[in-house]
Amino acid sequence: MSPSDFRNYLEENFQISFNHLPLLQEALTQRNYLNEHPKEKGRDYQRLEFLGDAIMQATVTEYLFKRYPEWDEGQLTEMRITMVQTKSFAHFASVIHLNEAIRLGKGEEMNGARERPSLLEDIWEAFIGALYLDQGQAAVVSLLQQTVFAAIDENFFDQFIDFKSRLQEKLQAQGSVDIDYTIENEIRNEDNSQLFEVSVAVDGKVLAHGSGQSIKDAEKAAAQKAYQDLTAK
Amino acid sequence: MSPSDFRNYLEENFQISFNHLPLLQEALTQRNYLNEHPKEKGRDYQRLEFLGDAIMQATVTEYLFKRYPEWDEGQLTEMRITMVQTKSFAHFASVIHLNEAIRLGKGEEMNGARERPSLLEDIWEAFIGALYLDQGQAAVVSLLQQTVFAAIDENFFDQFIDFKSRLQEKLQAQGSVDIDYTIENEIRNEDNSQLFEVSVAVDGKVLAHGSGQSIKDAEKAAAQKAYQDLTAK
Repeated sequence: MSPSDFRNYLEENFQISFNHLPLLQEALTQRNYLNEHPKEKGRDYQRLEFLGDAIMQATVTEYLFKRYPEWDEGQLTEMRITMVQTKSFAHFASVIHLNEAIRLGKGEEMNGARERPSLLEDIWEAFIGALYLDQGQAAVVSLLQQTVFAAIDENFFDQFIDFKSRLQEKLQAQGSVDIDYTIENEIRNEDNSQLFEVSVAVDGKVLAHGSGQSIKDAEKAAAQKAYQDLTAK
Repeated sequence: MSPSDFRNYLEENFQISFNHLPLLQEALTQRNYLNEHPKEKGRDYQRLEFLGDAIMQATVTEYLFKRYPEWDEGQLTEMRITMVQTKSFAHFASVIHLNEAIRLGKGEEMNGARERPSLLEDIWEAFIGALYLDQGQAAVVSLLQQTVFAAIDENFFDQFIDFKSRLQEKLQAQGSVDIDYTIENEIRNEDNSQLFEVSVAVDGKVLAHGSGQSIKDAEKAAAQKAYQDLTAK
C-alpha cells in the first residue's frame, strides 16, 4: 500500500483527511529505504517519532485523568504503563494497517521488520506525530477514540497485565503472606486440548478460581479475579 | 502567599487569569497539609502532577521540534533531557514564586521542603496540569514562552550540560584519542578569589581555552568552547 493509498484508507475508515502527503510519507519511511532511493527527498520517520511519542503520552494521560476522576496517581500510572508500550502500539499499528504502508529497506523487508513490534511502535508514534502536525490534537483524539480508548472497554489491555505480580503486591502490602495456586481440575478434550481450573489461596483461604487452556493461563485468570475482587472493595 | 494571592500575582506578572481557584489550590497542596487540616476539602497535588508532567514533556517536545527543524532526533532528545529535569523545573518554580504559595505540612516546612528541588519540580508540574485544565494548551505555551523557552536564548541550560562528557563522546566517536586539560594560568586576586585558565587538547593539539573561578569551572568552559566549535562545523 503506497502512502497515498494509505491516505485514502484513513479517509474511508477513520474519517481522517490527511492534507500534507509528504508528512505522511515521512512518518512511513525507514532509513534504509532512503539509502536505497537516493533520488528521494525527505527524511526518515525518526523526528516525527520524537514528537509523536510525547503526543501519545500526553493524550493518553489527559484521557485517563478525565475518564477516571476517582483514581489516584498510582492507579493512573499503572493503567498508562499498560497502554503506552510496545505491544500495545504494535497492535494498533496493525489495526489501522500502518504495517502495510511502511517504506522499508530491502534487507529489513527480508528480515521481517514489517511485523517487528519495535518498528511498528516507532511507526505508530511517527504517524501520530504527523497526524498532530497535519490535523491538530482533535484528530489525534478522534483516532484514539476509535482504537486505543475503545480497547479499554473491550478489556483489551488485561492481556498485558501481570495479575499474579499485582495480586502478590496487593496481598503483601501489609506484610508477608502465603499465596498458593492449586490445580483443582484438569479436563482433556477429544482433540487433546486441555482445560485447567486453578484456585488461588492466601494463608490457606481460597480467594478465587480461574480456568484456561494452560496452567499458566488458569493461574493468571484466578489472580485477575482475586485482584479485581480485592480492588473493587 | 495564599493561593488567591498567587492568582493575583500570576495575573499581574504573566497575564494569566486563573478561573477555577480550587484547581490552583489543589496544585499547591501537599499531602500532610491536608492531614493537618481535616476540614479542608479537596486533594493534594499528585493527580495534577501526573497530568502536568505529560503536558510539560509534550509542550517542550513540540516547541523544540518546530524551533530546530534541522536537528535530528538525537540532538532534540539531548536538548529535551537538559530542559525537562528536576533542577530546571525547580528553578522555574522559584522564578514564578510557586515555592512561596505551597501549602505544606508543618513537619515538611521545618525540614526545608519549601526549597527542596524534588518538591518544587512536582509542584511545577502540578501547576502546569492545573493551568492546562483551567486555560488550555495556549496558556501553558504562553507561560513557557515567558520562562522556560526564553531561557534557551539566555543559554540558561548550559549549566546543566556535562560538556566534558559530551566532548569526550564526540572526540571518541571514531576511536580512542587522548584528551588533556592543562592549567595555563592561575591568578590570585587581592580578595583571595582565583581565576584559572585551562586549555583542552586532543592528541597534543589544543582545541580551546576556558577560564573560571575553579579548575573544574575552567575545564568545563574549555570543553564547552571546544564542543561548540566542533558541532558548529
